[in-house]
Amino acid sequence: MKKSIGILGGMGPMATADLFQKIVALTGANGDNEHIRVYIDSNASIPDRTAAILDGGEDPLPAMTDSLRKLEACGADCIIMPCNTAHYFLPRLVEISERPFVSMIGAAAGACRRRFPGKTAAILATKGTLSAELYQKALTAQGVPFLVPDAAEQEALMDVIYRGVKAGAPPSQYREAFCSAAESLARRGAEVFLLACTELPLAVRELRLNMPCVDPTEELAKAAIRFCGFAVRGE
Amino acid sequence: MKKSIGILGGMGPMATADLFQKIVALTGANGDNEHIRVYIDSNASIPDRTAAILDGGEDPLPAMTDSLRKLEACGADCIIMPCNTAHYFLPRLVEISERPFVSMIGAAAGACRRRFPGKTAAILATKGTLSAELYQKALTAQGVPFLVPDAAEQEALMDVIYRGVKAGAPPSQYREAFCSAAESLARRGAEVFLLACTELPLAVRELRLNMPCVDPTEELAKAAIRFCGFAVRGE
Repeated sequence: MKKSIGILGGMGPMATADLFQKIVALTGANGDNEHIRVYIDSNASIPDRTAAILDGGEDPLPAMTDSLRKLEACGADCIIMPCNTAHYFLPRLVEISERPFVSMIGAAAGACRRRFPGKTAAILATKGTLSAELYQKALTAQGVPFLVPDAAEQEALMDVIYRGVKAGAPPSQYREAFCSAAESLARRGAEVFLLACTELPLAVRELRLNMPCVDPTEELAKAAIRFCGFAVRGE
Repeated sequence: MKKSIGILGGMGPMATADLFQKIVALTGANGDNEHIRVYIDSNASIPDRTAAILDGGEDPLPAMTDSLRKLEACGADCIIMPCNTAHYFLPRLVEISERPFVSMIGAAAGACRRRFPGKTAAILATKGTLSAELYQKALTAQGVPFLVPDAAEQEALMDVIYRGVKAGAPPSQYREAFCSAAESLARRGAEVFLLACTELPLAVRELRLNMPCVDPTEELAKAAIRFCGFAVRGE
């Protein structure tokens, strides 16, 4: 019996659509019936994760728990979250979940090590993800050298994420902010860009940039496909 | 209290991802929390609808009912299906559903009338959708002139749908089949192409074709957004 996936989503909605699209595209299936059953709750009422971690904003855990319970009731065999910052709350969710989680952080850190051995990864993420040191810890555990954005680079990235992708703005409005941050990081030694906020792979795609990247959404999609006992297309 | 959407999906999975992506992109929201809550069951076990209608294939209604019950239990305020052929079963689903359905057929036929008044629409669809006369009836009711594919055009379209998009084939493998059918229909008087199988908007996008089209997936997304009390972006 092949397994199913539950996406605890809405963080943000477009990143949730991106993860789902990547799961379908990366599943080695030749017709509708060979795909994985996927349950999604794109829950727009989950409070902002970065605000909760940094500024004492509303705790997102009750809304996340509501979604978790719905996905469990549907019968999802594993749970995944298309939001890096949300993984700050993963230890508390795991404690109350009846189903295993597949971690986006673990999948992405492993991909940095395997795909770019010895290269220095720049962690492009929200202030919440960086402050919680989610990727710093995972990359250290995997032996991957890394650097984090400085204050100016970070402000530019937060603009790309919040005023750009999450606000549905056209790419022209966030091109300069993204490219200035990436170029500055490259000058400081970044060799690989870890797009550690789920809005950033969308930004890179919209901007048609060609740079060495690890896309945690894609790595999570592959890890979840494998968990379910399906083949990853092309592997 | 704004309403939520339940997507009875998996018919096919990529079309389900396309519908979800269009709902998010077309919702007039400026941040995660201004979006619609969307529940999805992408149920890969739903038997093929055209095979059931034409060839006595397995009845998809039990699997569709299973998904419907899960979406109801989640709390979805309306149900939508990203599969035109599946609307053949809509009257039976409506009888057993606790929630209203928003019809893709009705939304798309209305868009033909409003956006292309007096123009002749070619119904590009599966044999199942055409045999059930789903769009013929809806377009007649709206006063829209139409034509349906002949045998050769229909075979080409079935190849695009089943051996192309549903099989995850690259666009180069179905370009000729699609273009030959469309050109043949245009010679016979088609002025607008009603992409009445949810795989076809994906094909047209992948092939980067620029032709007068009505995309039922997009029209359903807009109709569902309005049903939920949200604004459509740009309207």
